[in-house]
Amino acid sequence: MLDFPEYTRLLYLVNENIEGFLPEVDVNSASLAESMRYSLRAGGKRIRPVLLLAACELAGGDSAEAIPYACALEYIHTYSLIHDDLPALDDDDTRRGAPSNHKVYGEAAAILAGDGLLSSAFEAMHRDILMYFDKPDRLKRRARAAYEISAACGCRGMVAGQVADIEAEDIDVSSELLDYIQVNKTAALIRAAVVAGGYLGGADAALIDSLRFYGEDLGLAFQIADDILDVTGDAEEMGKPTGNDAARRKATYPSVHGMDESREMLSGLTRAAIERITSYDRNAGFFTEIARALSVRVC
Amino acid sequence: MLDFPEYTRLLYLVNENIEGFLPEVDVNSASLAESMRYSLRAGGKRIRPVLLLAACELAGGDSAEAIPYACALEYIHTYSLIHDDLPALDDDDTRRGAPSNHKVYGEAAAILAGDGLLSSAFEAMHRDILMYFDKPDRLKRRARAAYEISAACGCRGMVAGQVADIEAEDIDVSSELLDYIQVNKTAALIRAAVVAGGYLGGADAALIDSLRFYGEDLGLAFQIADDILDVTGDAEEMGKPTGNDAARRKATYPSVHGMDESREMLSGLTRAAIERITSYDRNAGFFTEIARALSVRVC
Repeated sequence: MLDFPEYTRLLYLVNENIEGFLPEVDVNSASLAESMRYSLRAGGKRIRPVLLLAACELAGGDSAEAIPYACALEYIHTYSLIHDDLPALDDDDTRRGAPSNHKVYGEAAAILAGDGLLSSAFEAMHRDILMYFDKPDRLKRRARAAYEISAACGCRGMVAGQVADIEAEDIDVSSELLDYIQVNKTAALIRAAVVAGGYLGGADAALIDSLRFYGEDLGLAFQIADDILDVTGDAEEMGKPTGNDAARRKATYPSVHGMDESREMLSGLTRAAIERITSYDRNAGFFTEIARALSVRVC
Repeated sequence: MLDFPEYTRLLYLVNENIEGFLPEVDVNSASLAESMRYSLRAGGKRIRPVLLLAACELAGGDSAEAIPYACALEYIHTYSLIHDDLPALDDDDTRRGAPSNHKVYGEAAAILAGDGLLSSAFEAMHRDILMYFDKPDRLKRRARAAYEISAACGCRGMVAGQVADIEAEDIDVSSELLDYIQVNKTAALIRAAVVAGGYLGGADAALIDSLRFYGEDLGLAFQIADDILDVTGDAEEMGKPTGNDAARRKATYPSVHGMDESREMLSGLTRAAIERITSYDRNAGFFTEIARALSVRVC
């Protein structure tokens, strides 16, 4: 579904660099580097880093300069999956068909691998800062991108969504609460990917606004498509854990809105996302294609 | 022990601002803000943020500008305690005489409170970045400080130390391994506090070097003093968990080196630390006093 040439080119760039900001193996803490790499290698579509690089290029920037930020996003996404799968949270034994991190390395190592990935994300974003000391404009772009990402992954973003998700288990979830959970848990980091990419590429305020709305619509569309595929049986393809009880107890777009309405919401969000970006994304480029691909696959 | 006027003044500054970078309570994720505040309010000496502010002033800077970084350090320290106390790690029911975070809020909330605090630390460091866009020198100082802290709390610092600590349980710990654990788990963040404070205050390369060595020596001295107090029974005063079996299984400086040698190491590190900073810290100022206070209390 995401195999169009532009995606493939950027995905290659991500995969070539994805381990470049991880720690070396140290004999005294050997399991750390290993458990972090294990989950990072488990793959997935790398949609967040690819979106970041594409947004950087759309804004006229050089995607090579954005690579540490792209990797940082994948580290943050991966840490969130590791912690999410823990027995105290979703208690998932598998992830993308393989044993989840704590099933291989134990709970303590999995908690610390997550902590290590989140820390490494911020380290990656700052590591080559000296290279930009004589380029004040670039330094500012990087500072803005780092702030965008730090805000999206924390208590006004992903972590807030995770907490709301846990607190909502086994209660009757309203449509508003479901939106709150998914806007924060999933859409915030996808929105941050395109906005941070925009900043890194030197986007002006109007393009940043368009990317922000596009990212949020796409992020929510992504979650709805995920929920629909979960019902229609293609969940594994989306990288979701399969066959666990906790996930089944959770509210989804189909469980709250029904399948037909969920499909309509997905179409609506896809159209809205494309509309936001269409004046920049000429000739139905990357951002239009990725939004359509998500929708076509499901509807 | 840390009640001299300079410490009290800076501690007040920290405590006045410590909750300023936490999320608002949201009805959908109410436990998040509450559980983060619970552990942050449990107190302690706030030694890391106080050191950061003092180093900023030593370098000639304005400590008011360094407050977000000081708070960030305390958030990072607090997150590490919450995760450390979890059943899968040290399994401590109490911390500073009160129930540990997961005993009050449950394991899921405690894991996410830790994740939230670490994210909030980076958010705090970047939140007011726009204020410095027309002051490129200040922007650079802040970028360096953020990198110093991100490197110290991650896989080449605190998280590596935590992993080594877990892996070393129930094995015969060499003096080298003990140093590796404590240099990373404890000293790295204390070193980052004084180095980041130095950067924020505009320190030159020579002062940064001195602060780096001072911080590492002080950080290790801090741990040795902590271990000694653990044996002599004043552990609770240092903020350590008490009465758990896991902690007793762990190697400490007294268990590896004996009490007399541990005291000698502490004295040696204290002298070395003071020597590093003495040419800057005129009239036996803050940095000399804090190093002496640690040592006098124990030896």
